Amino acid sequence: MKILIVGGTGTIGKFVAEKLKSNHEVIIASKSNGDYLVDITSPDRIEQMYKDIPNIDAVISTTGASHFGQLSDLTPELNDIAINSKLKGQVNLVLIGQHYINDSGSFTLTTGIMMDDPILRGSSAAMANGAVASFVKSAAIELNRNIRINTVSPNVLEESLGKYGVFFKGFNPVSANKVANAFVKSVEGAQTGQVYKVY
Amino acid sequence: MKILIVGGTGTIGKFVAEKLKSNHEVIIASKSNGDYLVDITSPDRIEQMYKDIPNIDAVISTTGASHFGQLSDLTPELNDIAINSKLKGQVNLVLIGQHYINDSGSFTLTTGIMMDDPILRGSSAAMANGAVASFVKSAAIELNRNIRINTVSPNVLEESLGKYGVFFKGFNPVSANKVANAFVKSVEGAQTGQVYKVY
Repeated sequence: MKILIVGGTGTIGKFVAEKLKSNHEVIIASKSNGDYLVDITSPDRIEQMYKDIPNIDAVISTTGASHFGQLSDLTPELNDIAINSKLKGQVNLVLIGQHYINDSGSFTLTTGIMMDDPILRGSSAAMANGAVASFVKSAAIELNRNIRINTVSPNVLEESLGKYGVFFKGFNPVSANKVANAFVKSVEGAQTGQVYKVY
Repeated sequence: MKILIVGGTGTIGKFVAEKLKSNHEVIIASKSNGDYLVDITSPDRIEQMYKDIPNIDAVISTTGASHFGQLSDLTPELNDIAINSKLKGQVNLVLIGQHYINDSGSFTLTTGIMMDDPILRGSSAAMANGAVASFVKSAAIELNRNIRINTVSPNVLEESLGKYGVFFKGFNPVSANKVANAFVKSVEGAQTGQVYKVY
């Protein structure tokens, strides 16, 4: 398969790429480095990416920014970071990509545990994750040409505890390896409309 | 209590207003008529509303537009209708209103069954509903001054079958009266972070 990993330079993306590259052609897209540069907050750039990289069998998104901060300080403008990136960026990879991806292709997006199990300072990310999860369940019943869609919702990563552990006190971290397996299951399996919760 | 119902001229909003007005001061806000005109897609208009209507004890939102259409025809632009109205409009009522509403006040937003039980042509609405539900669960743990937040997620209404029945074939419609009770429970009860599913 020809697999595009958007956000393939991040912690999860690197593990997913490592697992897939021995058996597949893996293309890493990212905002700032990788094989292809793309800003997913721009629908035009997403469309251009699909034109530049034809015949994709699987699109994996392990990207999406959010503002983390107290609800009392969360303004509509700060909330737009998650809406434009984690939410619209990922959803637009599907809305635009459904017209370019190969028959029987798949989309796998990334959400996160805070949509189910809220954390302090995580309302904006929870919102975006909940949006993506409900979109995935709904889009799955309408995608044509046997195209599938799933999302992986990870707990905090063992590998990211230094950076994010303060947000996830009392959570049981999971390994990036385990999370990456859920992406492999989505791409190489046959399920659709699933929210793979790696909690 | 002084209760603001944004979208109080719609099918659900009218039933909610009817139930609350005998015991409370109810103010109806809407885009085109009612006691106060507000366009919830504009954060500035929302802020002005809270300045114009001080001392609110409960904000109820029974509003929010979405585009209903096939996923294959859903463009990023059409998807923005739900993002700007049903999602950001409702979330911004909270982000801005948290600084204006009275101590021990409450917010009650509206979502919908398609976030859990997808319907054809409903991906954009499902996305917005899922966002609002996850936001509500997360915001509930951070709101200050004993402010509460819940959402009511209705099935298709008996009263709306003529208009929306074609989207909800095989669903068991519920009465607007039953849905309105969930809003009353949110406002007059003490729970927070709940998704009241009237399915």
